[in-house]
Amino acid sequence: MLDSPLVRTLIRLSIEEDLALGDVTSENCVAEDSFATADVIARESLVVCGLSLVPWIFLERDIPVEIEFLSEDGAQVEAGESLLRLRGASRDLLSTERIILNFLQRMSGVATVSRRYAGESGDLTVLDTRKTIPGWRVLDKYAVSVGGCRNHRFGLGDMILVKNNHVDAAKGASRGERMRAALSEISRRKPFFLPVEVEVRDQEELQVALEFSPTAVLLDNMSDDEILASVKLIKSTRPQTVIEASGGMTRERIQSLQGLGVDAVSVGALTTRSPNVDISMRLEIEQ
Amino acid sequence: MLDSPLVRTLIRLSIEEDLALGDVTSENCVAEDSFATADVIARESLVVCGLSLVPWIFLERDIPVEIEFLSEDGAQVEAGESLLRLRGASRDLLSTERIILNFLQRMSGVATVSRRYAGESGDLTVLDTRKTIPGWRVLDKYAVSVGGCRNHRFGLGDMILVKNNHVDAAKGASRGERMRAALSEISRRKPFFLPVEVEVRDQEELQVALEFSPTAVLLDNMSDDEILASVKLIKSTRPQTVIEASGGMTRERIQSLQGLGVDAVSVGALTTRSPNVDISMRLEIEQ
Amino acid sequence: MLDSPLVRTLIRLSIEEDLALGDVTSENCVAEDSFATADVIARESLVVCGLSLVPWIFLERDIPVEIEFLSEDGAQVEAGESLLRLRGASRDLLSTERIILNFLQRMSGVATVSRRYAGESGDLTVLDTRKTIPGWRVLDKYAVSVGGCRNHRFGLGDMILVKNNHVDAAKGASRGERMRAALSEISRRKPFFLPVEVEVRDQEELQVALEFSPTAVLLDNMSDDEILASVKLIKSTRPQTVIEASGGMTRERIQSLQGLGVDAVSVGALTTRSPNVDISMRLEIEQ
Amino acid sequence: MLDSPLVRTLIRLSIEEDLALGDVTSENCVAEDSFATADVIARESLVVCGLSLVPWIFLERDIPVEIEFLSEDGAQVEAGESLLRLRGASRDLLSTERIILNFLQRMSGVATVSRRYAGESGDLTVLDTRKTIPGWRVLDKYAVSVGGCRNHRFGLGDMILVKNNHVDAAKGASRGERMRAALSEISRRKPFFLPVEVEVRDQEELQVALEFSPTAVLLDNMSDDEILASVKLIKSTRPQTVIEASGGMTRERIQSLQGLGVDAVSVGALTTRSPNVDISMRLEIEQ
Amino acid sequence: MLDSPLVRTLIRLSIEEDLALGDVTSENCVAEDSFATADVIARESLVVCGLSLVPWIFLERDIPVEIEFLSEDGAQVEAGESLLRLRGASRDLLSTERIILNFLQRMSGVATVSRRYAGESGDLTVLDTRKTIPGWRVLDKYAVSVGGCRNHRFGLGDMILVKNNHVDAAKGASRGERMRAALSEISRRKPFFLPVEVEVRDQEELQVALEFSPTAVLLDNMSDDEILASVKLIKSTRPQTVIEASGGMTRERIQSLQGLGVDAVSVGALTTRSPNVDISMRLEIEQ
Amino acid sequence: MLDSPLVRTLIRLSIEEDLALGDVTSENCVAEDSFATADVIARESLVVCGLSLVPWIFLERDIPVEIEFLSEDGAQVEAGESLLRLRGASRDLLSTERIILNFLQRMSGVATVSRRYAGESGDLTVLDTRKTIPGWRVLDKYAVSVGGCRNHRFGLGDMILVKNNHVDAAKGASRGERMRAALSEISRRKPFFLPVEVEVRDQEELQVALEFSPTAVLLDNMSDDEILASVKLIKSTRPQTVIEASGGMTRERIQSLQGLGVDAVSVGALTTRSPNVDISMRLEIEQ
Repeated sequence: MLDSPLVRTLIRLSIEEDLALGDVTSENCVAEDSFATADVIARESLVVCGLSLVPWIFLERDIPVEIEFLSEDGAQVEAGESLLRLRGASRDLLSTERIILNFLQRMSGVATVSRRYAGESGDLTVLDTRKTIPGWRVLDKYAVSVGGCRNHRFGLGDMILVKNNHVDAAKGASRGERMRAALSEISRRKPFFLPVEVEVRDQEELQVALEFSPTAVLLDNMSDDEILASVKLIKSTRPQTVIEASGGMTRERIQSLQGLGVDAVSVGALTTRSPNVDISMRLEIEQ
Repeated sequence: MLDSPLVRTLIRLSIEEDLALGDVTSENCVAEDSFATADVIARESLVVCGLSLVPWIFLERDIPVEIEFLSEDGAQVEAGESLLRLRGASRDLLSTERIILNFLQRMSGVATVSRRYAGESGDLTVLDTRKTIPGWRVLDKYAVSVGGCRNHRFGLGDMILVKNNHVDAAKGASRGERMRAALSEISRRKPFFLPVEVEVRDQEELQVALEFSPTAVLLDNMSDDEILASVKLIKSTRPQTVIEASGGMTRERIQSLQGLGVDAVSVGALTTRSPNVDISMRLEIEQ
Repeated sequence: MLDSPLVRTLIRLSIEEDLALGDVTSENCVAEDSFATADVIARESLVVCGLSLVPWIFLERDIPVEIEFLSEDGAQVEAGESLLRLRGASRDLLSTERIILNFLQRMSGVATVSRRYAGESGDLTVLDTRKTIPGWRVLDKYAVSVGGCRNHRFGLGDMILVKNNHVDAAKGASRGERMRAALSEISRRKPFFLPVEVEVRDQEELQVALEFSPTAVLLDNMSDDEILASVKLIKSTRPQTVIEASGGMTRERIQSLQGLGVDAVSVGALTTRSPNVDISMRLEIEQ
Repeated sequence: MLDSPLVRTLIRLSIEEDLALGDVTSENCVAEDSFATADVIARESLVVCGLSLVPWIFLERDIPVEIEFLSEDGAQVEAGESLLRLRGASRDLLSTERIILNFLQRMSGVATVSRRYAGESGDLTVLDTRKTIPGWRVLDKYAVSVGGCRNHRFGLGDMILVKNNHVDAAKGASRGERMRAALSEISRRKPFFLPVEVEVRDQEELQVALEFSPTAVLLDNMSDDEILASVKLIKSTRPQTVIEASGGMTRERIQSLQGLGVDAVSVGALTTRSPNVDISMRLEIEQ
Repeated sequence: MLDSPLVRTLIRLSIEEDLALGDVTSENCVAEDSFATADVIARESLVVCGLSLVPWIFLERDIPVEIEFLSEDGAQVEAGESLLRLRGASRDLLSTERIILNFLQRMSGVATVSRRYAGESGDLTVLDTRKTIPGWRVLDKYAVSVGGCRNHRFGLGDMILVKNNHVDAAKGASRGERMRAALSEISRRKPFFLPVEVEVRDQEELQVALEFSPTAVLLDNMSDDEILASVKLIKSTRPQTVIEASGGMTRERIQSLQGLGVDAVSVGALTTRSPNVDISMRLEIEQ
Repeated sequence: MLDSPLVRTLIRLSIEEDLALGDVTSENCVAEDSFATADVIARESLVVCGLSLVPWIFLERDIPVEIEFLSEDGAQVEAGESLLRLRGASRDLLSTERIILNFLQRMSGVATVSRRYAGESGDLTVLDTRKTIPGWRVLDKYAVSVGGCRNHRFGLGDMILVKNNHVDAAKGASRGERMRAALSEISRRKPFFLPVEVEVRDQEELQVALEFSPTAVLLDNMSDDEILASVKLIKSTRPQTVIEASGGMTRERIQSLQGLGVDAVSVGALTTRSPNVDISMRLEIEQ
């Protein structure tokens, strides 16, 4: 997944923004024949993510460097542990340091938060959302899965998700009729195997949605009572339907959902509120 | 700054990752001739940032849409306020909604945190760092300045910053000699007007650095006593030198630095630990 | 779907290959202020496809032109009918003529063949494959759906399809064990809602596959007897599973599959053996 | 020719459309350290084309793989013959399989049809046209030449071809005058060595065209009588002019043109009506 | 020719290199609502070239600006004359000024030198070469033709030019045999209409070359006697062959070639030694 | 600096413009297994520049070639000296020859002129300008510094340069007031360390500019008397300010400025009027 062309474009952009005019400091004071070893070190307890991206960064710069992996994506490490050892020209290591760290700090940050959610979710599956940093969809989703949560749809093209707005834009005298109009069109035309999830606001919409055997139903911002009623209707009509809840999914709210019959919750905070973790590089110049 | 080619590439990438296969939901159930009005609304108290980016997103998609600005970058708004009103084809608004929100939520998040730091920094100038999201250098720096903090160097090419590693990679029997070797080379070769900042670890390095009349001196992770001694030496030798402190710059630490003679502090957290703020879109389908 | 960035890249490439050195003929003999009307005309009976792409071609060249649609994607037209009328500078129409026709002839060719398959498939759904022209995945799939067949997965990232090779690469003492190993891993890690289809070679593999409630089962190159046995097992175990057959799916073979319980067939020929149809442009110079 | 930047862009696009989200199947069930040998095998009698493209595909993905060529572009092979042997990581082979086959099947398809035309054309040279798949100009032309036919102009910039529309857009009271006006302008301004071909509708146009010593004259959709009259005039006036015929050039029509004095025929069908040939990949997992 | 995708890439690059970080001066001190008129003015006598490129620059930046052409490509103007008038936002004009001038100064410089050569070449046609600024092939060739000289081949793909090195790389016991081997291969395989020029070093090579009826023969760095002998042989054998001379083609040397029977000379200096001409922009801020 | 992404784009473009259709000559007559050694040779006395770019050209084409450096960027060499030796496939060397030479000839041309200016500038520092070939900013600036002159700002984003037009666009009743308005805005908002240079037309503007402690003051097209007066005011007010003179800076004018107190002069001619130098390639085919 990390060898996606989308990631290559992002790496290229990250190099361009930092190095379009070169590294004026290193070029002007570090000898071309100075070599060094650099250790990438965790500065706090964290879930490692992004190590497998590092070779692609050097590849994109066409820089030869020896990479020794001392940890792996998904590992839980403590402050002070080395994750990666690099050997190469001092100039090249210095000019790539910040790019590497910026990737690792964000990716490990997302993985670390995801690990926390995954560990406390009991029988609920924790899903991510499309609320990712623009340009970072692949990396944010990868970090979420490295952390132990699961990926929801990737973009607008790999799954149908009929939201309230789509229903409102359809033709019909009532919500139920509009829902039926929208889902009929979709069933007829969508890529054959594409999963269909339907967001429902009330029992009327839910009933219509279930007529179409959707892959999943989305219960957004519902109270426990509303959820219970919906679950009951789903289980009795289309028991194989996945039930997803969303809206304000803090870790506390997820706890409170246990046992209500919900299968999965989607949590924007995995990618919108996860602070970077602290990772640094220690360079040893070879004398 | 937002019309930078770097930003255009990022916008293109953000469209590609979400829409490479189209928006299968809207395409299959929303009529081509359905039009709508969409309001972008703050869901919490925040500093607005990114509104001026929105037209570029539609431009990149070659989508005609009417944009009415109801606020502006830098404005402090409260939950419930509308920031922007869009009118266009329902399909186009629905397929662009998430891209717009993802940009605004991150940019306004950075601006909001920056405003807080700027407001509590007293006579110290708060600077950002290069610890930005890869691909987001321009946008993160723009958001910092919209929030009221100031931008440090943009990349490795628009300012010299001689760090410990550069000094260690130079030739010489002592730290001081290596510092002198590095700075001599740089003075001789660097682009003529490029500012030079020097990170110093001790008084020996500081003394050598001051021989070269640097634009600024960086005091990284120093105790108050070390800072005081350094400030004294700088003020008595090269009074026009800017004094920057860095390392663990929480808002408390910045408070404690008041009056020590430091001019500026650089704060990675502006861009590494600022959560997205909550912004949503409310769509009204035209009947 | 046609406003996908992938299509934009292809259009740009099609312009580059024809016009990198300009149009030396028109530039050297057609006056800049000569204007014309051009009709795009079907030269044989065909299903129209690609009209909605035409504006994107002119947009990519930044050429102003008036476009009047005289037909629409999906329409069945006869030889001699006009599909599209263009008004603009003679130079621009002449230099874009071949690019437009090349797109329309291929896309309408695929749509025309697809319409034929769709019309004769009875209760079987006809699906396309990933056997598309490199660079043309979006357009070929769009043309298939315009013709009335349905799209199978788009690429390697929007659906799991476990083929024989994947099973053989898994660990285990028998085919069944390897199948189980592969499907266990996948269930645990795959994006949550991603559909899973499993190709099976024999009843042992099929039985294991059904343990995992796959979205679909693929019966490749099976005899009628093998198909019947497989259908029976599937219907009695996991009746909601989609049954797809593939391999040598001529229109005759599809006829012979009617009534066996197969839901869908995938047909590479839609995109690998559909000849271009004949479409031409007739230009009237304004005097 | 295959190392053209245009081809690199097309390969990149073909990877992007199939692998933007990675290969979810292989990534989730094939071990990273599983290796395999893959044979690319002809499934029908065909003219091989595209083998020399395969290394560029792996290069673009930055994947190390051993490539052993068992045939070469232009070879006539029979069903069952291996064309190429690949050794590498199973994941990499599986995720690149379809891309490779899609290129080879189309390119070999065009080469196979071209070989047939070339073999039956007697003393006439068979030329291709610009009726190629958009994005595929280089590859389609390469395949035609591998098959034994010859390439006409590549794009609108490497040869002048004055068609009826160009003549009609010129100023003048009669066709002949307009032809003269167009050709005068062209002679005066065109790149010095660029060949000039002129399409003529009647003897008046032909006579004017010959005044300018064109490289070639194009006789489009003419009857045998018209052709004979034109050939006679050309041979007696400008004997070194190449005579090209076009329009409905089936193999039968080409036969019937033998001996009329025509030098070359251009055949759109080489690239517009050549079905893909059947080529598959057989994978052996190393245990 | 100026709407070539190659030119678009170059314009994009020229914007990127100047404006990747924005225009910090204008953005920080010029009001967004300040508008201005800018005149582009010749500062010396020159041949105008590049005006038709200006709209493409603004288009690439997506900046609305009014453009009034006061001259045209190819016009001879004197110091002080206005070539172009622009009206738009002061910021936009200021940030685009240098890009526009840099294009115009180089292009007009090449056109001006070319005009001088064209005017003094008598009955010899002056051709350019491939000795152009990398990235500037289209623009340099356009400027040459605007100046009144003619374009030789554009790149390595639109004409065969067999040079000494090619002959030496062929197989054969003597120069003549190697020449014959090279030209035989080429005749058999090259794109059908592609012109063939052959560089010859002596009469033996020339004689062999003429056997193949080349489009042109290149006499490189020959003395007048060698030229006379070659011309004589060519005129008596293949009178329609174009005779080109090259090597040290100063304006004096071109004078001295008059009357020797040479048709054309190629002159690298048109694009390698033409100084930029002086053009400036005068801005009037609207009050 | 030469590994900048901007340079990669330019190299890619230079390959595209020459080789989009391949090298039809070499492909059709040079054997694939012919190898050669090529020496790049100076044809006149020059300062070498661009050798370190050559590996990037081959890297971009993915061509394996042995490169032996016989000189280095910045070296003064005489006619006949070899700068570089290449060993590889004859085809590859022949098809890359012109691209390499075109880069070296321009870069060495700029370096050679710059060396001359640097050698005659006495105590004045010679700076370049932004008057570079579009697309060539990095390479032109690199060549200037290799020649021994110094780089002024790179683009519009790495330094503030307040010119007359900016002052005129500001609000205020007099030039002085407008200058003060512009500089106040800039001080408040600009990136913190960004140097500020101010162009002044008279003593009033100069006095206001000095209030803001600018990094540098620009005296454009001033007479010696005006310069002397300005220098006096600057030295007495802000002695650390750099004084730059510009406008018509021929080598004679630079001589005449010696001793007036000016620190630096900027010279457009380094990059606008430096002819290419003569460099060629001599190929030895291995037999």
